[in-house]
Amino acid sequence: MSPADAPVLALTCGEPAGIGPELAVMLAADVVPPALVVAVGDPALLAERAAMIGREVEILELARDEAPPAPRRGVLPVWPVALRAPARPGELNVANAAHVLETLDVALAACRAGRAVGMVTAPLHKGVILDAGHAGFSGHTEYLRDACGVDEVVMMLATDSALHAREASGQGGAALRVALATTHLPLREVADAITGPRLARLLNILHDDLQRWFGVDAPRIAVCGLNPHAGEGGHLGREELDTIIPVLEALRAEGLTLDGPLPADTLFTPRHLEGVDAVLAMYHDQGLPVLKYAGFGRAANITLGLPLVRTSVDHGTALDLAGRGVADPGSLRVAVALAAEMASRGGRG
Amino acid sequence: MSPADAPVLALTCGEPAGIGPELAVMLAADVVPPALVVAVGDPALLAERAAMIGREVEILELARDEAPPAPRRGVLPVWPVALRAPARPGELNVANAAHVLETLDVALAACRAGRAVGMVTAPLHKGVILDAGHAGFSGHTEYLRDACGVDEVVMMLATDSALHAREASGQGGAALRVALATTHLPLREVADAITGPRLARLLNILHDDLQRWFGVDAPRIAVCGLNPHAGEGGHLGREELDTIIPVLEALRAEGLTLDGPLPADTLFTPRHLEGVDAVLAMYHDQGLPVLKYAGFGRAANITLGLPLVRTSVDHGTALDLAGRGVADPGSLRVAVALAAEMASRGGRG
Repeated sequence: MSPADAPVLALTCGEPAGIGPELAVMLAADVVPPALVVAVGDPALLAERAAMIGREVEILELARDEAPPAPRRGVLPVWPVALRAPARPGELNVANAAHVLETLDVALAACRAGRAVGMVTAPLHKGVILDAGHAGFSGHTEYLRDACGVDEVVMMLATDSALHAREASGQGGAALRVALATTHLPLREVADAITGPRLARLLNILHDDLQRWFGVDAPRIAVCGLNPHAGEGGHLGREELDTIIPVLEALRAEGLTLDGPLPADTLFTPRHLEGVDAVLAMYHDQGLPVLKYAGFGRAANITLGLPLVRTSVDHGTALDLAGRGVADPGSLRVAVALAAEMASRGGRG
Repeated sequence: MSPADAPVLALTCGEPAGIGPELAVMLAADVVPPALVVAVGDPALLAERAAMIGREVEILELARDEAPPAPRRGVLPVWPVALRAPARPGELNVANAAHVLETLDVALAACRAGRAVGMVTAPLHKGVILDAGHAGFSGHTEYLRDACGVDEVVMMLATDSALHAREASGQGGAALRVALATTHLPLREVADAITGPRLARLLNILHDDLQRWFGVDAPRIAVCGLNPHAGEGGHLGREELDTIIPVLEALRAEGLTLDGPLPADTLFTPRHLEGVDAVLAMYHDQGLPVLKYAGFGRAANITLGLPLVRTSVDHGTALDLAGRGVADPGSLRVAVALAAEMASRGGRG
């Protein structure tokens, strides 16, 4: 891929007390990334963490409106965002919550100005951002949704297909993609959050973005029930009968290919996954444990419904591992590879 | 294993319109089972299904109080329970609901009389039993709990460890065992069903039965949170802080080894599963999708807390496959093997 047509991706470094900065360093030190990756973070922090974990990386500070040079192993270009306070591995500091949010804003601005086609995000720590006074903050996904002025986004996780084919014999060898109808909600609020109109919007976004970013001409989506055994004909809950089935029937009439609603514990088996492009789970812990089990360390998070590419690692800040160079950069590599692949395919209108 | 000391297991054939009867036939036709298995069902139906799927099996009708002979390939001993109405593959008939329940009662009676040490159950169809007027029937597990007069049982699913070691590289090679704090409840009722005293009783049963039936001297149990991210310090729900953590702390003080509460989507990864003897998931679709994904067709269901061994297949009646001989007997084989293994270890006091 020549530098001229390689997509530029902004990589936000996330919580500075966590493993995000050193994962960015590892990415630059270990391999030539499949895109022009520009870190968004504090250049001095990145240099410090590189030294701390013993990696030789040149931290190349750019101006905010400057394009990165061709990717080169050992060089990490950075659009700088200064820390608000010193950051030590493992020690959260509310003073740096604003720094973390600013890295997101800088990446968004680069996308809006056409300097980047998308962003890859290292993990932030929701608790410290809430504790810093940003009430209602509930994560990257929702923050980017609001910042982009869209009503609805869909959180989807995907395994790396190459790895998946190797490890999971019998699973069809395709990437496993799991989208969520609800995300970061207490379990007792899930059932009421799934309304017919919302479910229809989410399925339309999922269908459209599988076409747009993943090159799937006629997506087939398998939908989980909300209740165990998908409600078992109403014996274990009525949401399937009252909400989910009518929505699926209406969308099928509009041409979507939808399986289900299926019991979650039968859906994730070879017979039902065969030929399926994505699974829609009704809530976080219905879909993500199996995705992360299947992908262990080789899965990434994708936000659908945005006007830009956004992928993310599938893990948290791992404060206990930070600064030691032992964190696994596998998910970040998958997130960068997926974003590069999406960026090369995408572009509506 | 000599016939004299081989444990006798009663195998109930389940819904006669489903795949249960032919799975029993396959078990006898294909291999010498690792125990003295006696089917509990209609001998004529079993002979008919054997012919239908083209397996040569001698259906050996015993008296209800008669012990089976040594296991022999191609011979299926049966404790007879007559159908109430003809049974055709795929066609549910409420008239046979009483037949299905009677097979359970006959198996229980054999266990109580010491003629069997435990039972293995093929799938029944809850809907048809409810439609037949058995209001409140919610499955094998609850039926056996009430019939045995115990207050609380624990549903646990386990993968076959030999298969698991082969397929799931990196997962440690051990069997994956997932117990459930709640089972067949609508999702919106789950949070209120998890009380501190109940959770403590379930964890004690799980701990005791891992010692008794599985030969684990000092069980280590990993416990999922109820909410996504295990509530993230109260930001995504308070049940971890208010209920789960206090119970775990009290039980640790009594000597139990308990991890968690952990987010379900990080718990099911090699780093957290290593050295864990069983996982306690808070509800059905938090734990079973990953278990069945990991075990595909090689997992079985175990009821803990009963005074007898009870295992079961991990799938349903598969009405669409019945009578065609294409159903996979893998889960039944695992259920029989597990029951035989448990029976050889078990026996309190």
